[in-house]
Amino acid sequence: MPSQPPAPAAIRDNGRVIVDCAVYRDGSRVPLAGEPNDMRVALEAAREERAFVWIGLHEPDQKEMDEVAQTFGLHSLAIEDAVGAHQRPKLERYDEVLFMVLKTMWYVDEQDAVETGEIAIFVGPNYVVTVRHGAGASLTLTRRDLEDRVEVLGHGPYAVLHSVCDHVVDEYETVAEELQVDVDEVELSVFSDQRGNDSQRIYTLKREMAEFRRAVVPLREPLSKFANGQVVGMPSEAQAFFRDVADHATRVHEQVESLDGLLSSAHNAHIASISMQQNNDIRKISAWVAIAAVPTAVAGIYGMNFDHMPELHWQYGYPLLLAVILAACVTLFFLFKKSAWL
Amino acid sequence: MPSQPPAPAAIRDNGRVIVDCAVYRDGSRVPLAGEPNDMRVALEAAREERAFVWIGLHEPDQKEMDEVAQTFGLHSLAIEDAVGAHQRPKLERYDEVLFMVLKTMWYVDEQDAVETGEIAIFVGPNYVVTVRHGAGASLTLTRRDLEDRVEVLGHGPYAVLHSVCDHVVDEYETVAEELQVDVDEVELSVFSDQRGNDSQRIYTLKREMAEFRRAVVPLREPLSKFANGQVVGMPSEAQAFFRDVADHATRVHEQVESLDGLLSSAHNAHIASISMQQNNDIRKISAWVAIAAVPTAVAGIYGMNFDHMPELHWQYGYPLLLAVILAACVTLFFLFKKSAWL
Amino acid sequence: MPSQPPAPAAIRDNGRVIVDCAVYRDGSRVPLAGEPNDMRVALEAAREERAFVWIGLHEPDQKEMDEVAQTFGLHSLAIEDAVGAHQRPKLERYDEVLFMVLKTMWYVDEQDAVETGEIAIFVGPNYVVTVRHGAGASLTLTRRDLEDRVEVLGHGPYAVLHSVCDHVVDEYETVAEELQVDVDEVELSVFSDQRGNDSQRIYTLKREMAEFRRAVVPLREPLSKFANGQVVGMPSEAQAFFRDVADHATRVHEQVESLDGLLSSAHNAHIASISMQQNNDIRKISAWVAIAAVPTAVAGIYGMNFDHMPELHWQYGYPLLLAVILAACVTLFFLFKKSAWL
Amino acid sequence: MPSQPPAPAAIRDNGRVIVDCAVYRDGSRVPLAGEPNDMRVALEAAREERAFVWIGLHEPDQKEMDEVAQTFGLHSLAIEDAVGAHQRPKLERYDEVLFMVLKTMWYVDEQDAVETGEIAIFVGPNYVVTVRHGAGASLTLTRRDLEDRVEVLGHGPYAVLHSVCDHVVDEYETVAEELQVDVDEVELSVFSDQRGNDSQRIYTLKREMAEFRRAVVPLREPLSKFANGQVVGMPSEAQAFFRDVADHATRVHEQVESLDGLLSSAHNAHIASISMQQNNDIRKISAWVAIAAVPTAVAGIYGMNFDHMPELHWQYGYPLLLAVILAACVTLFFLFKKSAWL
Amino acid sequence: MPSQPPAPAAIRDNGRVIVDCAVYRDGSRVPLAGEPNDMRVALEAAREERAFVWIGLHEPDQKEMDEVAQTFGLHSLAIEDAVGAHQRPKLERYDEVLFMVLKTMWYVDEQDAVETGEIAIFVGPNYVVTVRHGAGASLTLTRRDLEDRVEVLGHGPYAVLHSVCDHVVDEYETVAEELQVDVDEVELSVFSDQRGNDSQRIYTLKREMAEFRRAVVPLREPLSKFANGQVVGMPSEAQAFFRDVADHATRVHEQVESLDGLLSSAHNAHIASISMQQNNDIRKISAWVAIAAVPTAVAGIYGMNFDHMPELHWQYGYPLLLAVILAACVTLFFLFKKSAWL
Repeated sequence: MPSQPPAPAAIRDNGRVIVDCAVYRDGSRVPLAGEPNDMRVALEAAREERAFVWIGLHEPDQKEMDEVAQTFGLHSLAIEDAVGAHQRPKLERYDEVLFMVLKTMWYVDEQDAVETGEIAIFVGPNYVVTVRHGAGASLTLTRRDLEDRVEVLGHGPYAVLHSVCDHVVDEYETVAEELQVDVDEVELSVFSDQRGNDSQRIYTLKREMAEFRRAVVPLREPLSKFANGQVVGMPSEAQAFFRDVADHATRVHEQVESLDGLLSSAHNAHIASISMQQNNDIRKISAWVAIAAVPTAVAGIYGMNFDHMPELHWQYGYPLLLAVILAACVTLFFLFKKSAWL
Repeated sequence: MPSQPPAPAAIRDNGRVIVDCAVYRDGSRVPLAGEPNDMRVALEAAREERAFVWIGLHEPDQKEMDEVAQTFGLHSLAIEDAVGAHQRPKLERYDEVLFMVLKTMWYVDEQDAVETGEIAIFVGPNYVVTVRHGAGASLTLTRRDLEDRVEVLGHGPYAVLHSVCDHVVDEYETVAEELQVDVDEVELSVFSDQRGNDSQRIYTLKREMAEFRRAVVPLREPLSKFANGQVVGMPSEAQAFFRDVADHATRVHEQVESLDGLLSSAHNAHIASISMQQNNDIRKISAWVAIAAVPTAVAGIYGMNFDHMPELHWQYGYPLLLAVILAACVTLFFLFKKSAWL
Repeated sequence: MPSQPPAPAAIRDNGRVIVDCAVYRDGSRVPLAGEPNDMRVALEAAREERAFVWIGLHEPDQKEMDEVAQTFGLHSLAIEDAVGAHQRPKLERYDEVLFMVLKTMWYVDEQDAVETGEIAIFVGPNYVVTVRHGAGASLTLTRRDLEDRVEVLGHGPYAVLHSVCDHVVDEYETVAEELQVDVDEVELSVFSDQRGNDSQRIYTLKREMAEFRRAVVPLREPLSKFANGQVVGMPSEAQAFFRDVADHATRVHEQVESLDGLLSSAHNAHIASISMQQNNDIRKISAWVAIAAVPTAVAGIYGMNFDHMPELHWQYGYPLLLAVILAACVTLFFLFKKSAWL
Repeated sequence: MPSQPPAPAAIRDNGRVIVDCAVYRDGSRVPLAGEPNDMRVALEAAREERAFVWIGLHEPDQKEMDEVAQTFGLHSLAIEDAVGAHQRPKLERYDEVLFMVLKTMWYVDEQDAVETGEIAIFVGPNYVVTVRHGAGASLTLTRRDLEDRVEVLGHGPYAVLHSVCDHVVDEYETVAEELQVDVDEVELSVFSDQRGNDSQRIYTLKREMAEFRRAVVPLREPLSKFANGQVVGMPSEAQAFFRDVADHATRVHEQVESLDGLLSSAHNAHIASISMQQNNDIRKISAWVAIAAVPTAVAGIYGMNFDHMPELHWQYGYPLLLAVILAACVTLFFLFKKSAWL
Repeated sequence: MPSQPPAPAAIRDNGRVIVDCAVYRDGSRVPLAGEPNDMRVALEAAREERAFVWIGLHEPDQKEMDEVAQTFGLHSLAIEDAVGAHQRPKLERYDEVLFMVLKTMWYVDEQDAVETGEIAIFVGPNYVVTVRHGAGASLTLTRRDLEDRVEVLGHGPYAVLHSVCDHVVDEYETVAEELQVDVDEVELSVFSDQRGNDSQRIYTLKREMAEFRRAVVPLREPLSKFANGQVVGMPSEAQAFFRDVADHATRVHEQVESLDGLLSSAHNAHIASISMQQNNDIRKISAWVAIAAVPTAVAGIYGMNFDHMPELHWQYGYPLLLAVILAACVTLFFLFKKSAWL
């Protein structure tokens, strides 16, 4: 994970999986008594009017997650999904708790590769629990951003949910930009005169597109539910903001579909160019073979042992013949040049 | 932007991003007091019955756009979308304000390329704000057109919205016509006897088709909403006119899909033709190799050093042999011609 | 237009764009006073109970169309669509007037090509206006047919609309049959031993399929509206007849989709067969090269200048060698024949 | 029709197109007075409670069909469809008469080909008329089967309709099994070392798949209507039986789609294998060319006429050289064997 | 069935098709009087409050199944489907009995192949009948698992249904993982320098993907019915658990679709790599041909019989020439190396 070196350090700074645990009232952080990151204290403090607690976890194990489940009364199936990663993006409701899973993606420059992680979010009436898997897509910056915008954070748990979705989809856009750059490079390479194995590059990109699609496509339905206000309990003024996120997700999906289509075309062009190159090679080779055939055939003639071959006895027969051969070869060379075989 | 040279000049004639700011009452332009392009004065004048203000902006920055937002009370998310381009076409409602984004496209002859821009439109009860990005698709002519048709402009803001959509979709049709011409050229080239790298041309066109699709496809839903009268606040007599625009957008989309399919077929034909050409080359080369093999093999025979080779001692053995070789080569030549290998 | 030579003559027999203008009462033609083809007289006569006027136009210009519009009170947008061809098939309602556009298609035998035209139809309470573009698909026969079936024509304007749709879709079926024949020919050619450039033929057919699709696909929705009785004002007994037309359109569409799929398969087979042919050529060429290599190599050996080569001094060395070479070549020839390389 | 030789004979045994005409009451055949196959007598007898007539026709002409239409009061459009074959499968209602068209398919072993026919069925309150086109898919066995199951036939006309549908879809399953076998054979052939033109076989199968699809796909909607009880007049206990038929139709369709996809993959594999074979050929040929080049080049050297070439004067120069050439050729041969070029 | 050797033994341990027949009350197994596996006794015992019987059958024949049908009053069509395997996955309701069919899949390591079986389940108010076909996917472990979780089994028949679905879909995930591994291997092989026939491997995998799809796709609708609580009689707390299964099925389906797409890309890459290899071969061969042409042509020149060829008489002409030939060949060799032809 060299692309985001400071993140892992920051995450585990207190040696625990709880990255941060804070209570907000009217959008401002409330100082808590007792141990830092004590969930029970925080939840107690969040019982006040217009207050909620936001706990951020990073790759908790089953035991740690069970503790969280017990504190907040979360459903065992959702807990299972949050601990074991490799879920598909989805939005589920367990009684009054909303459970959402998002795939995170980030681009690792050194390897020209896309890596993926996962964020699971529980949204209750007065709490948000975010569970992150994978190195990238840290939420620390998202939290700091939100803490700077008190009026937004004042809207409660859904403001956090929106910020996380927004942050994740923004990362998608960055990744899509990088893939766009990669496709542009492939394109240049395919149409350059250089012979290269673009086919592997194209395949790798196609594979990443498939990864991308599996992250974005299932996300569209949940986002459109938020955008159309079909989620019970969500404040209606949040709708426009989720619509914005849904719109970005749609755009980034369309972009990737479009890139995928271009890659297919690029591969076809690549195959055509291999065949063209073969044609060119065969023509070039044949031209040289033809040129080389001249001295061989002519020399063969004058290597015959007939008694009566007057040319053999001419004083300047030999240099003349060499000159003829040379002339014929040069003529052929230029004829081939002209007809573009050479 | 050599394709529309006068446009950029006209746009910035007053050195500001506000291209024009006018108030219309019953379809006629109302002369305004004070500074030209003073939004507040204009908005004041538009408060009268059957009047509205139309402000045209070109690539405003955030600060300029904020001023507009404040004057007309526009939503911050829409403002964000209007300033930063690269949105996908969409139709959104923020309370009583309708916000629409359109992709503009125009064909640059010199480069045989399609360029894209964007128009964002805010439609309020008594104002229209159009925000244009990119060089092409100037709205100056659209405005002049509308000012000449007082009875149309008298229908208010939706008449402007319709004219802009109509203008944008008309441009699509021009672009589609140009792409049709390009595809026809590619087709001619693929089936000509000339060897050319049509593959790159096909790829570039496919790329432009993809661009096109990303402009047209998301536009169809908003246009059909207008056409079916599902937009609150739109006068019902506008429906037929939007249906016309929607219809053109659908047609142009079908045309581009159809061209895209043809390009794929053309590429297949191109690959087949490369293989055919290779077959032809190989046959042609082989024929010449066969012809050249005759003197070599025959001369080899008479270059042997056997003591008893009676032909070697014939008076006219040598010229006779040359004649035999020539005859064999000529015969082969015509045989190959007949079987179409040469 | 050699495929339908009498049609154009018949159309313009009176030197006007109005091909025919007749009033029908209870399905029978009513003789009109005054000038032939005088619209106003006809419309007046059609005001009677159970009467309607049917005017057939051929490629009218804007002015002529404006006159019609004024007489019958037609909407300007529909008029625009009816004058300028190149619309997509559609069904629209302007108040009490139904406006329908159909693509016509006919097969020109001489060129093995499909040509397209357009018919626009206005159906009012007591009139039908048909506007035809392009040479083929004349409606004269359709009118005569209907005039012979008084009981059908007695159902009024919708009987005319149905007849026109029926006639147009019947033409589609003829075209589809011709395309089927063309695909069968391509198929034969691809799998024959003849080398031919089937690729261009396939491409041209694919292009015609695309044309076909653009005519039929948008027509299916309007026809199914008629078939399901979703068109206000249409007599319910017409439903079954439109269902029949809709059914034919669906079948012809399925047939063309199926042909299009077969063409793609045929193209793949074509590419495979080019490669197979190349394999065969290469094997054949190589076999001959191998056969030709025998005398060259052997003669080379006996062309060497070693002092001690006993074979050179044999009495029958030379004819023996020729016999050996011949035997080797013949053996190789039969070996290659056996392994199917020759 | 060698695949079902007895059928046509059985059908026309009485020299008429009416194959059988029987009245059933409570599921048992009622003996009729008068001429056999007299429709009017039969219909009269079917007026009783819990009785119905089932008439089976084979390829009637227009006149014969008109007689049937008159007797049972059938709609002219349905009659037209029943006489002229080449309809697509469909379900239509004309007042109280249900009209259904099914494509029949059967596999002709001798030709490895699928043939198609058609069955049209009219279901009225107390009658069923089945009209069959094509040689295969005789309904005689279906009728005998039903007559043996009195309790089923006692359910009336819909029992007949179900039996016919069931019989037709069962035939589809047989055909699909045969196609599965054909695809397995193609698969074996593509991946065998034998060179064969699998491409034509694949194409023919694809064509049959297309035929299949055109029979099955339009049938799914009517069958699901029956299965969901959306057909007025059908007894509700028949629903489960039609659901069974619909299910089989869906399965057979999925199977064919799956086979079609496999055929495409097989074709790709075929093209890859042709290219692989070409590579192998080229390598093999080149290896032999290289081996043959050794004696030619070496012999060329010792054919030179330099005054001072000591090897030429060695006593055993010639046999030594032959040995060297042989050794070089054998070495090359084994090197090529090792690197798999030979 | 070497992959699951103990299963078949366990199944038929009592020499009958009834693998197990148990009654559960409040989730605990109730000891039964009489013969083991006597259905009637079991059903009698299951009439109590909160009790149900679960009978597990393995490949019963018609007679055995008829007995079960009679005991539990099952519909004949469902019985038919349960005896004859090769059904497609489906969910049907016969009065108060729910009938479900699932395809089972398991991976046989030795053959790198996917095998399929079937499970049919009848769910009545107080009984569950599971009928299994094929060797894999034994339900013995599922039963033991459930018996260990009394509180789950206490929910009655739907708990069993859920466990079976869960178990089957879990197997799908295992299979999908194995296919993922296979695709990764193919990928490595395609992009390695080794020449291999990946094409057959790709085809086989595509065939397995098709098999997979036919198992998973039809299952998605029934599962989503359970997940959305659209199944009458299912306890509502089961919904979340079925949603979990549905979610896994969807994910596994998306994974397989994605793998299938990658396989297509891999095949394209494979074809490109064959062509690249051919290009490389041709270049390599041509380079060697060119190198071999040097001694042949030069030796030909000095094999000529001209009277006046001064070089022939030089003392060191011959070794000099050999040196020149060698130098030319070496130079060519390095030139070709440099331009990557060798």
